[in-house]
Order: sequence, then C-alpha cells, then structure tokens
Amino acid sequence: MRIKILGSAAGGGFPQWNCACPNCRRLRDGSLRGRSRTQTQLAVTSDNQSWYLIGASPDLRQQIVSCLELAPETGTPSSPITAVFLPSADVDAVMGLLHLREFQAFLVFATPAVQQILKEENHIFRVLERAKPPVAWFSLPFPGQPGRAGANDLRFNAVPTGGEFPDYVSDELRGTLPAEQAVVGFILEQSGKRAFIAPSLSGRRPEWKTWAESSDLVLIDGTFWSDDELIHTGRSKKTARQIGHIPLSGPDGLLAQYPKSARGRKVLLHINNTNPILDEESAEHRAVLDAGFEIAYDGMEFDL
Amino acid sequence: MRIKILGSAAGGGFPQWNCACPNCRRLRDGSLRGRSRTQTQLAVTSDNQSWYLIGASPDLRQQIVSCLELAPETGTPSSPITAVFLPSADVDAVMGLLHLREFQAFLVFATPAVQQILKEENHIFRVLERAKPPVAWFSLPFPGQPGRAGANDLRFNAVPTGGEFPDYVSDELRGTLPAEQAVVGFILEQSGKRAFIAPSLSGRRPEWKTWAESSDLVLIDGTFWSDDELIHTGRSKKTARQIGHIPLSGPDGLLAQYPKSARGRKVLLHINNTNPILDEESAEHRAVLDAGFEIAYDGMEFDL
Repeated sequence: MRIKILGSAAGGGFPQWNCACPNCRRLRDGSLRGRSRTQTQLAVTSDNQSWYLIGASPDLRQQIVSCLELAPETGTPSSPITAVFLPSADVDAVMGLLHLREFQAFLVFATPAVQQILKEENHIFRVLERAKPPVAWFSLPFPGQPGRAGANDLRFNAVPTGGEFPDYVSDELRGTLPAEQAVVGFILEQSGKRAFIAPSLSGRRPEWKTWAESSDLVLIDGTFWSDDELIHTGRSKKTARQIGHIPLSGPDGLLAQYPKSARGRKVLLHINNTNPILDEESAEHRAVLDAGFEIAYDGMEFDL
Repeated sequence: MRIKILGSAAGGGFPQWNCACPNCRRLRDGSLRGRSRTQTQLAVTSDNQSWYLIGASPDLRQQIVSCLELAPETGTPSSPITAVFLPSADVDAVMGLLHLREFQAFLVFATPAVQQILKEENHIFRVLERAKPPVAWFSLPFPGQPGRAGANDLRFNAVPTGGEFPDYVSDELRGTLPAEQAVVGFILEQSGKRAFIAPSLSGRRPEWKTWAESSDLVLIDGTFWSDDELIHTGRSKKTARQIGHIPLSGPDGLLAQYPKSARGRKVLLHINNTNPILDEESAEHRAVLDAGFEIAYDGMEFDL
C-alpha cells in the first residue's frame, strides 16, 4: 500500500489564521526554521488507481488540487477518490466533505455515532446527496467484528482511541451515543503489511500499544508537546489530555509510553501550531528525533 | 474604502477537484492561458485596521494565510477581522465560518432566514460559540430599513438579488422562509463613494440596474457565459438561470442588460470553472473586455 500525507497539522493548520504565538509569528516573519502545514489529511492506495481518504480536512480542496495523483483523468466527474474514512465528527475531520460536494459519488465510512451527528443535526452535509448515485454511508468495522471496508486486498479496520464527541453536538443526541464511537484510529492491512494510523490518541485506552508494537508503520498523535501547552500560549483553558490528546513529553507522555519493542517506523502526525517540535532548531525537535520518531510534513509518502 | 478580492471563482474554485472539463484539464496540463482561482471571497476596510469579510468561502483559511494585511498583530487571538457579511446560506458562502472557529470573537451579519438555516439545522456552526465572547449574529439591514452595519463611516446595506435557498435546507423550514432573504448583494457606502457587490444575480428583480447605474464600482455575477453551460459540460442538468445566475451572453444576458449609462468600473466576479472567459485567448474573454468589463482575479484590489 502507498500512503501520502496531504496535511500534517492539527485543527487550524500552521500557521493558524488568528494566532500570533511564537511559532506562528516566526513562521510568518521568516525567522522560524520550519515548514507551514495544512490540516491533517491522508490519501491511501493499493493499486495507484483508486484512492481512499482518511479524514476530510478543512483544507481538502487545496490538498487535492496540489496532488497530481488525485486529479480526474477524463470525463467529469471522474476523480480517482472512491471512499472517505472519518476518524471522528470533529470539524477538522469532517468539514472537507463539503469540499467534495461537486456531484461525485463516493463512499463514506464512519462510526454509526458520527453518521448520526452529521445526518441528524447538520443538514448541510445533504449536499452530498446531489450526486447520482448519491454518496453512500457505511459503518466502520472494528477488528473482530463482521463487516469489511477496503478494496482489492487492502483492508481497513477502526480502533477506538478514546476522546470526546465534539462540543457542537446537542446534549440530547450526545447522551445516546456510545463513547467508543467518538474517535477512532485505523488499522490498514495488505500483503502482510500493517499500518496503524491514530491522529488523535487520548492514551486512556491501552490497546494502542499493541497496535503500535505490531505495525510496520505508525502514524500517531503528535499534537502537543506538553499537557498545558494551550494554556501557556493563551489558546484555551484546557489541557491536552482534557481534549483527548496524550502529550509527547513527561513520564506519562507518548515518548515515554511508546512500546520499546516496536520495530516499525514511527511518525508524529496532527501537530498543533503551538508545538515546539515545529521549530527545527528547538531542543524538543531534537528530542523527538533522538527518540527515533519522524515528524510528518505535507507531501511525505510511504510505501509498504 | 479598500476592497481586496481574495477569491474570484464560483463554488468549487478553478480548477475543481473532480472536474476534467476543457478549462480544468488545460489549466492542469499547462496549456490554458489563464489563472487558477479560489472561491469568491472579499475583504473590505475603511481604516486599514478593521477588516470586514464578504462571504465565508470554503477556501478562507488559505485566503487569509496568504493575505499579509489579515495576519494577527500581537497576542492571540488578535485577528484584524471583525465582521463577516453572508450573502446566502450556500455552501460556498458559509462554509468558511468553520475555518474561523479558533476562539475568535467577531460579528456575523446575515438575513434572518440565513441565520435560521445555520442555527436551527446545522449545529456544527456552534463551534463559533466557543469564543469568549461568542461570535455575535446580527440581521442585515435592507436599504431604507432601520438598522445599520459597518464602522467608522463605512455603511453596509443588503439588497435582494433573487435566487433560491440551498437544496440542503429541509422542506419544513424552507416553507417558512421569505424568498427575498435567500440571496443578497451588498451596497457599501463611504465618503460619497458607493460599491455594489452581487456575486449571485438572478436577473429576476430589476433593482440591480439602479444599483449598477449609481455605483462607482460594481462587482457582479460573472458565473456563466451561457445559460446551458453546465448541461453542455455535463456538470448538471440545470440551466444557469434555474440556479439563480443570469448568464453573460444572449439578448437577456448581463452584458446586453447592463445599463448603458453606468459610469463606474464594472468587474465580473464568481466565475465558474466552465466559463470560457477564463481562457484568456478565447473569443468570449475578448468580448467581455470589449464590452468594458474587467474580470476579477485573486489578489485584485480597489481603492474608492
């Protein structure tokens, strides 16, 4: 399988439109050694013909237009994009569906809870019904459950990674939704190779370590360096853990908790604009590389 | 007043992600003499400090990040964007509000019907309530009505330009909404100067001619060259007029109907990817220029 990173930043991207934190300010004035990044978005193929999107980022139009492999071939509509896999109902995971409103039929895979949120409380996603046939929705299978998503011999499974339903969901609906359907990661398997993709990892459920240990490629939550990062930079009053992200640093952080026996490539994804690892001259950037992690960037690509 | 065009294409932009019409195909392979364009978005200021957005395009993050004047100055959040004026509830006019979800307080001006559509049937826009204070919504004043939008001596008024509520609105809600609140243009006035901005003009209501005649700058619907353009290129089974756009050509088209006595600059905006005027070597491009019109492009700017 082939995996392309079309976007590698957390919600809002890097720089964020209204943020003047040290990273964003220095990126704008050219004094930061580092790269701008669009919001997290992956594209996967097993045959270089059909492409599957993981996530539907707010920057998706820009990301597709700048990716040659995703250009339509002939006729119209004729995009090679055949399915979209949604990890959650967060704005930065679903807003991009609205970019795909141009009369194109494709499949959407999401947990039943995420589907309910979009269909029952957000009529704007009905624009996807204008395609003929309309966009078709399917439930994501969890490992061991019946059901299957994918094509050829590429198989997708969802794994709950902890985390919350978005704030915008009504209290009435939220009360009826199973917590494990809020945020998922993905296991991709083909030809004996496995990729584990978890842009949002709460760290509250231990299964992630098993998947990290047994995968050839792990694309994993690198949102925040420290638990209080958003508070320090004035962006929020909540900690990283409170909004569903295990921070990289600290004794309970991702770097320390990552299984020592894991042999696959490990790549940090979904990096927030406030994260000091975005500064390639920082001690934190160095620490992450020294721990054997790579840092995802827009345009990075993997062949498994 | 100063008006910047951040985006000049119709919904989907140019090229469109899944379109291989002659324009899109030739733009991709480099054989078209013409420019790529993001979706229609304007920014207006009267003091070079506070900026007002007209529309909230799906490309808004990209558009803000590439516009130096819209960068935040100090602290966070500290964007110079203070208000957003919505011309309709169409996806390409409102989706960009979701790009502005990063804890920033600003004002949104829209007709009561557009507000109802977003608030009652689309909970995802509640992300704007996370700002402290939350984003505040106001009704757009029509000319002659009490109420006022703007700052310093810059005044905004809305004028109905005909057109439909979007397909995604439920039949129940649609039945209760006044038709003249579906799609509006804007009259901007300051220091004796007037701009008329109508990216969607149905041509069904005659008032637009009065506004076009009496304005120093007219930014007006250049979506389609011909009424059957979408049908010819296989993008839809509807005509331009059926979806609320007067075409440029023909005896009842915009070029022929435009008031001869108008003295202001006249600029075509909201240009669809299928429109032959995007090809700078086409007869249609030449015909538009010969008729005294300019064709908007991303980055175009006006001082009044």
